[in-house]
Amino acid sequence: MIYPNIPLAQTVIELCKAKGIQHIVISPGSRNAPLTLGFSNNPYFKCYSVVDERCAAFFAMGIAQQIQKPTAVVCTSGSALLNYYPAVAEAFYSNIPFVVLSADRPKHLIGIGDGQTINQKNVFDNHILYSANLKLDLKDENNLPGNEDLPIFKNLEDRLERFLGLQKDIQSFNEEEIQVAINHSIIKQGPVHINIPFDEPLYQTVDKLSVAPKVTEFSIKQKTIESYTLQECLEDWNAATKKMVLVGVNQPNAIEKKWLDELAEDDSVIVFTETTSNLNHDSFFPSIDQMIAPLTEKEEQALQPDILVTFGGLIVSKKIKAFLRKYQPREHWHIGKKDANDTFFCLTSHLEVTPNQFFETFLPKLTHYVKSHYHSDWMKVRELRLEKHQQYLEQIPFSDFKVFNYLFKAVPNHTVLQIGNSSAIRYAQLFTLNKTLEVYCNRGTSGIDGSTSTAVGCAVANEKQTTFITGDLSFFYDSNALWNNYIPANFRIIVVNNTGGGIFRILPGHKDTENFDTYFETNHNLTAKHLCDMYGLDYAIANEETSLEYALQGFYEKSEKPKLLEVFTPKKVNDKVLLNYFEFLK
Amino acid sequence: MIYPNIPLAQTVIELCKAKGIQHIVISPGSRNAPLTLGFSNNPYFKCYSVVDERCAAFFAMGIAQQIQKPTAVVCTSGSALLNYYPAVAEAFYSNIPFVVLSADRPKHLIGIGDGQTINQKNVFDNHILYSANLKLDLKDENNLPGNEDLPIFKNLEDRLERFLGLQKDIQSFNEEEIQVAINHSIIKQGPVHINIPFDEPLYQTVDKLSVAPKVTEFSIKQKTIESYTLQECLEDWNAATKKMVLVGVNQPNAIEKKWLDELAEDDSVIVFTETTSNLNHDSFFPSIDQMIAPLTEKEEQALQPDILVTFGGLIVSKKIKAFLRKYQPREHWHIGKKDANDTFFCLTSHLEVTPNQFFETFLPKLTHYVKSHYHSDWMKVRELRLEKHQQYLEQIPFSDFKVFNYLFKAVPNHTVLQIGNSSAIRYAQLFTLNKTLEVYCNRGTSGIDGSTSTAVGCAVANEKQTTFITGDLSFFYDSNALWNNYIPANFRIIVVNNTGGGIFRILPGHKDTENFDTYFETNHNLTAKHLCDMYGLDYAIANEETSLEYALQGFYEKSEKPKLLEVFTPKKVNDKVLLNYFEFLK
Repeated sequence: MIYPNIPLAQTVIELCKAKGIQHIVISPGSRNAPLTLGFSNNPYFKCYSVVDERCAAFFAMGIAQQIQKPTAVVCTSGSALLNYYPAVAEAFYSNIPFVVLSADRPKHLIGIGDGQTINQKNVFDNHILYSANLKLDLKDENNLPGNEDLPIFKNLEDRLERFLGLQKDIQSFNEEEIQVAINHSIIKQGPVHINIPFDEPLYQTVDKLSVAPKVTEFSIKQKTIESYTLQECLEDWNAATKKMVLVGVNQPNAIEKKWLDELAEDDSVIVFTETTSNLNHDSFFPSIDQMIAPLTEKEEQALQPDILVTFGGLIVSKKIKAFLRKYQPREHWHIGKKDANDTFFCLTSHLEVTPNQFFETFLPKLTHYVKSHYHSDWMKVRELRLEKHQQYLEQIPFSDFKVFNYLFKAVPNHTVLQIGNSSAIRYAQLFTLNKTLEVYCNRGTSGIDGSTSTAVGCAVANEKQTTFITGDLSFFYDSNALWNNYIPANFRIIVVNNTGGGIFRILPGHKDTENFDTYFETNHNLTAKHLCDMYGLDYAIANEETSLEYALQGFYEKSEKPKLLEVFTPKKVNDKVLLNYFEFLK
Repeated sequence: MIYPNIPLAQTVIELCKAKGIQHIVISPGSRNAPLTLGFSNNPYFKCYSVVDERCAAFFAMGIAQQIQKPTAVVCTSGSALLNYYPAVAEAFYSNIPFVVLSADRPKHLIGIGDGQTINQKNVFDNHILYSANLKLDLKDENNLPGNEDLPIFKNLEDRLERFLGLQKDIQSFNEEEIQVAINHSIIKQGPVHINIPFDEPLYQTVDKLSVAPKVTEFSIKQKTIESYTLQECLEDWNAATKKMVLVGVNQPNAIEKKWLDELAEDDSVIVFTETTSNLNHDSFFPSIDQMIAPLTEKEEQALQPDILVTFGGLIVSKKIKAFLRKYQPREHWHIGKKDANDTFFCLTSHLEVTPNQFFETFLPKLTHYVKSHYHSDWMKVRELRLEKHQQYLEQIPFSDFKVFNYLFKAVPNHTVLQIGNSSAIRYAQLFTLNKTLEVYCNRGTSGIDGSTSTAVGCAVANEKQTTFITGDLSFFYDSNALWNNYIPANFRIIVVNNTGGGIFRILPGHKDTENFDTYFETNHNLTAKHLCDMYGLDYAIANEETSLEYALQGFYEKSEKPKLLEVFTPKKVNDKVLLNYFEFLK
């Protein structure tokens, strides 16, 4: 086998392997050559070459999101690293494990005016679980990094001994730091940064490893709920007639079905599931915004929960946030091993166990269901909403609203749906999605900067077909996502193109002035067609119902290339249709 | 006039105006609406709308590079800000004044799970001159940010008084911080970050200002050279027979001609000018790499300077770096008001004055020229090199080398040339460029991430025509640069497309293996044609000499749209032609 000559590169690579990091996304460069050579020549790793580091990082994150294990990105020194930052922040807030491996120059070549050299240490400080700043290998006793590390000994033997000791210290330090970083990523599920200085020559290879890093295992201490906390919770629960469970971003099949059934049986419990919760039950309430937005004040009061239980990641719905901040529950318990967000300013308990652990401990202890109309009353509201929703759909013109209805229905069963920010995911909250889908959206930072790249990563990692539905600004922003040789042929993109940031039209802006059109809506006349020609995707277009229905008919058929469908919608109609919707539901 | 309702937004805008920041590049968003409304409705400002923040920042930096005054970028909260980072780092190392204005949520909405919310404070810590973290305006005495700021006073009057005092304190703090930040950018010439929290409502406007921020003026203390330092320098100078002046990145017309003439007269002085030095004189030595690369060891020894004088920014030439690190001068003086880089590990003095100030003080004090062959010997070498260079050009096949020769010759007199990283700028170092050109390249971080956007900004800000010459990877990386409504019709782009990172082929890699092609050279089959169709640029193509000559003939003629010329070169020939060049020159 071929290994890089540099021991530090070998150490990094061997430890990635030992820790099960298999997917490596490499961006081109020279300083990172020792890593590139090592990873790409080792059959354990699945390597990908992606030039634009912004895309590379989101792509790697998209893979990690699916496999629930860290992936790694590898880049050269300099500003390359900074282009990872949007994805690092997304991974940080979305709890996606993800390892940044940045090559760096040796310390004595930093800050002296060399090219492609910045201050890489701790550069992601605000949004990273751990930053490991590795030390340069000592090459030989005559070539030492900074004389301060090794005083001149008159006796040559002393000098050699000192050198070997120092070399061992550096090797141990590096091994330790690499593992601490990777373990953080695995245990705490998030991004870490390992900065790795290499000196020239960078391209030499050997056929035997010169290092054998010691792998330290770790065990995660399982937390349990203290019995007095459990007792208190049970008492509060039994005393409450209105319990709301709200589920944010959540992996498919993360919660055991029997607990969901049990929650569904309880008349005093309503479960609100966000589109990204991947949690489905006939008795639960998806389409949160559809439920909440039309509420009268009287209804809002009636809906105010005594106890709110949340689990999962960030919440998309602004309406439920506004509602719960106004009608705060007496108790808000957050369940989960990550930090608990005090999203509604009334958090009372953070139970640091998995939702399954909680339900397993908690639900069997309940001796009875509290008598309540809470659930049944809201089921009636839901029926009403669905009926009105249907009526509304039948009467509206061709618009974003109508288009999203078509699109969500067309996604095949048992496939993966990636949704872009922000209008696409907000529309998704108004529809009852196909329950067999796995649904994802970058809601850590809710950026438009890497949704397509994330979806491509997802498509590569998930055996099921992936569809990505996005707005135009988000799509064109991340157009380099298509500069990727690994997009599977069954990948599908749908761009809802309303020629600008349509979402700004529903905000209280100053519509239809030149100022608004330019700086808020950022009007444009772009089409995705040219990008499809450039990157080899099949392209289809629709701009009214008939062409949309036609385009969707064959869209999911097997194809040799990935396909993109661009649906043009009338921007001056879209916002009215959406705003009227909430009126109509009342 | 229309102003945003929020006093803090008014303050930021009024102070930008007072400090002469006129060019404002805005990316769409809602949190930044108060700034967007204020800037775009005020005729003092020239506003631009650019969606991708990575491009927006390089574009703004390109403008600032030309006008030598700060420009500003404005973005919404969340990951938008992180996309500015590559340009922030480039501006930091290239000493380009540049102000980042990021809208943020109020403190109580950060870290509680709201959308588009990250930890924005000090996020550019490693590469910024100053970070101002502003405080939220107090809206009224019943709506206070965090109770800790205002204890409850029983007496209502006390409470009101305390409120007004606090409001005044916050206003003063913000005014002070904004000015400190902008002043840093102006005085120290580099990027600063102002983070600005806004609370809803964000879209309200008023027709009168409610603030009148006090503008504090600053004066820059002129440093002079201490007389004993000057004396020492003069003595050293007069004792030395070999003096080398090396000029890095430098603005056109920055150095008075009479000093250049004087340096040129001195036989003991040779002046090496980098392509980006914008310094021309018949007696100086451009094409540094052409001079240095073929040197024999004996010649190298003869070239070793006694004194090295550097000024200007970063040095492109790896060959001069390697040479001067090996043959270090006794003295290395760096002249300039910014930090001095110890690029050759032998820096002895940093004279913190402008080069003009230095020459003005120093040169008139010289009573005689030291007798020396240093200059004349190297003039002979240069003649030899130019002759060989010409011979070589005549015998080589169509290749990058030959293409760059055509391209550099074709750029019209008295125009601006922007060059991409890294192969394009490296090739430029081998040719004697047209002396009437102004030449720029992003050498702060030497990244490929924003060269096109920078060139577009330059084209917008400079009345002269701008040509941008770039390699393919760099061009496709920053393809969103073309999503810009302000590109002037006389802007010209030339992409030398060798279908991958050709520069890696001249490095000691493992060429022509699948591994090399994928991860180092990152082969692709992309063409710029589709991007031209998409963004409305005229497109021309060349792939051998005849078509290149033909394409260049009409290329600079007046046009209604900007134009792009794509020149395809044979990647397997390019590296050999370049490597043989250095052999041939010997």
